[in-house]
Amino acid sequence: MLQFSINKNFFLQALNTVKRAISSKNAIPILSTLKIEAHAEGVILIGSNGQISIENFIPVEQKDAGLVVDQPGSLLLEATFFINVISSLPSLELDLKEIENKQLLLKSGKSEITLKGKDSNQYPRIQEIPTSNPLLLETKVLKELISETAFAASSQESRPILTGVHFVLDENKQLKTVATDSHRLSQKIIQLENAGDAFDVVIPSKSLKEFTAVFGDEITSIEVFFAQNQLLFKSEYISFYIRLLEGNYPDTNRLIPTMFNSQLTFNVVQLRQAMERARLLSNATQNGTVKVEIKDQTVRSYVNSPEVGQVDEELEVLAIEGEDLSISFNPNYMIEALKAIKSEEVILSFISSIRPFTLKAAEEDQLIQLITPVRTN
Amino acid sequence: MLQFSINKNFFLQALNTVKRAISSKNAIPILSTLKIEAHAEGVILIGSNGQISIENFIPVEQKDAGLVVDQPGSLLLEATFFINVISSLPSLELDLKEIENKQLLLKSGKSEITLKGKDSNQYPRIQEIPTSNPLLLETKVLKELISETAFAASSQESRPILTGVHFVLDENKQLKTVATDSHRLSQKIIQLENAGDAFDVVIPSKSLKEFTAVFGDEITSIEVFFAQNQLLFKSEYISFYIRLLEGNYPDTNRLIPTMFNSQLTFNVVQLRQAMERARLLSNATQNGTVKVEIKDQTVRSYVNSPEVGQVDEELEVLAIEGEDLSISFNPNYMIEALKAIKSEEVILSFISSIRPFTLKAAEEDQLIQLITPVRTN
Repeated sequence: MLQFSINKNFFLQALNTVKRAISSKNAIPILSTLKIEAHAEGVILIGSNGQISIENFIPVEQKDAGLVVDQPGSLLLEATFFINVISSLPSLELDLKEIENKQLLLKSGKSEITLKGKDSNQYPRIQEIPTSNPLLLETKVLKELISETAFAASSQESRPILTGVHFVLDENKQLKTVATDSHRLSQKIIQLENAGDAFDVVIPSKSLKEFTAVFGDEITSIEVFFAQNQLLFKSEYISFYIRLLEGNYPDTNRLIPTMFNSQLTFNVVQLRQAMERARLLSNATQNGTVKVEIKDQTVRSYVNSPEVGQVDEELEVLAIEGEDLSISFNPNYMIEALKAIKSEEVILSFISSIRPFTLKAAEEDQLIQLITPVRTN
Repeated sequence: MLQFSINKNFFLQALNTVKRAISSKNAIPILSTLKIEAHAEGVILIGSNGQISIENFIPVEQKDAGLVVDQPGSLLLEATFFINVISSLPSLELDLKEIENKQLLLKSGKSEITLKGKDSNQYPRIQEIPTSNPLLLETKVLKELISETAFAASSQESRPILTGVHFVLDENKQLKTVATDSHRLSQKIIQLENAGDAFDVVIPSKSLKEFTAVFGDEITSIEVFFAQNQLLFKSEYISFYIRLLEGNYPDTNRLIPTMFNSQLTFNVVQLRQAMERARLLSNATQNGTVKVEIKDQTVRSYVNSPEVGQVDEELEVLAIEGEDLSISFNPNYMIEALKAIKSEEVILSFISSIRPFTLKAAEEDQLIQLITPVRTN
């Protein structure tokens, strides 16, 4: 029967990592528990919501962990409640011991708390992924890819494939990442230094958003492995499994225009703030749009809400090229697109008032974004 | 028609003060607006939810305000929306001008925003309170009285009078403040330096909780005025009106015991943390209680939840006097009571397992709290 001692703070940190996979409102009740396995080599914590699963290994060699395993064993505990109890304990030294009827006795200072656990056989088995031939990625690069594209995926289940982010690695070590909800699109293409087997997968954007929280900045690189419907991001001690989306991702290459008739350069922050003002009023209009007009070498934005009022603003623009234009779109898409751009300046390129327009940072061309206008009148 | 210029940040600060009185979900729709009045002497902002009303005066002499009044006038604007729009404006210099049909034109930098307003005649009149013969109170003292008692008032409307805090000033300048929800009680008695007319009022605890947010620490003293059903807290620029509760407050003096059979002294933080552990498990029991037992010169706390587990803990105690005892109570009342105590040590005094017990800070005796035990078995 499981028995070990551990440093409270180190234990809590590992528990909170695993908890990111656990939802307290899961349709499968056993998934609200977390699994603790004690082995001679260390302790493994496991959490899952069916879509993602996280395993965190705490080795006995890890000095900060203060881990001494007295008896191997495994047990399930209600995740949220267990973590709250552990945080409340008075001392940094913590003894955990399984007693009769799958109960766990916690000793810390003068406190003794006994918690009801469950048989670990009730926990579903995580499908194993062969960990050979890894693709090595920098954690920072992967986090950037996610923050620059995942927001553009759909949050609606009407076309499930669009709730994912499309990752494609070709034979030339070119990695393309793209997401779209059919109103806007964000695509980043980077050149990898390390080779890897080519792949073409669609990863749920929701699962990807946990990636940044699970792998701290101290973990500089990640190994990536694929199985049929699963993907595994692996660091030294953390294994993060994601169930992939099934189905074919639409061909997005043909959507991205390359020839334009008008081009505007803005300061990213100034344009975002103007769009935030416009959004306050456009939220109260029927189609929720702002109109941007290029005319006489000035650019203006307009919103007219019969309910609450109007905005009429001359936008600060750094450069204007090409034809006059009047185009309406949802300012929220523009605000989210601008938040994904890290450089100071952005170039907006237009074909006409009814064709999607692109956003690109002035300095780089790895990231390209697309917004579809809304036809008014 | 209203017209003035003002510094954006100063204006926002005043707007946010007034907004504390405004609820966006008010049953009376006009109370979701705020009233702006421009006079030759300055601008008055007014907000109300029917229970509390706040007036904030911005004088033209106030240098930081950058206030220039061009035209007097008054107008109503949707409070939340208006404040969001003001925050979004690009420049610190802000011009406001009433135009046709009760619209307000805002100019800031190159932005022009027009908002629909309403006729200020639609706004209810705030009942005036004669401001003669004020009672002067230190803001700090009043904030302390509120934080030490208001939490103990009832949040249930079944006995409306108990949702208030009872303030009584007698001829000897003694101010008594007491709140109870019939399960616990908190009372503070202080001696005022300044004389004032005797009063006996019940102030809604909810309204009092806004006091601390409305009057910043830079406002060192407050004038207090009473009318029939109203009270006014007044600083140089802010008037905060509160509608009083009607009815007789129960006589609480007879509830507070003075003779005891057992007494325990604890460190406040240690006892609170032990009660927080107990609460995690007591929340899952039927009567939600923790049992505290004095026996053989040690004190232990117990919780037994058939659902989730047990707590058994020896409490760190600084002094034990009197008889052995076993008493059960809601740990939540204890935690809230301990949070109101500012000193390091607390003395718990008991008569028996079925009589209310008291909490007092070790160093002072102005604040006394009472908790009623729960009969188990």
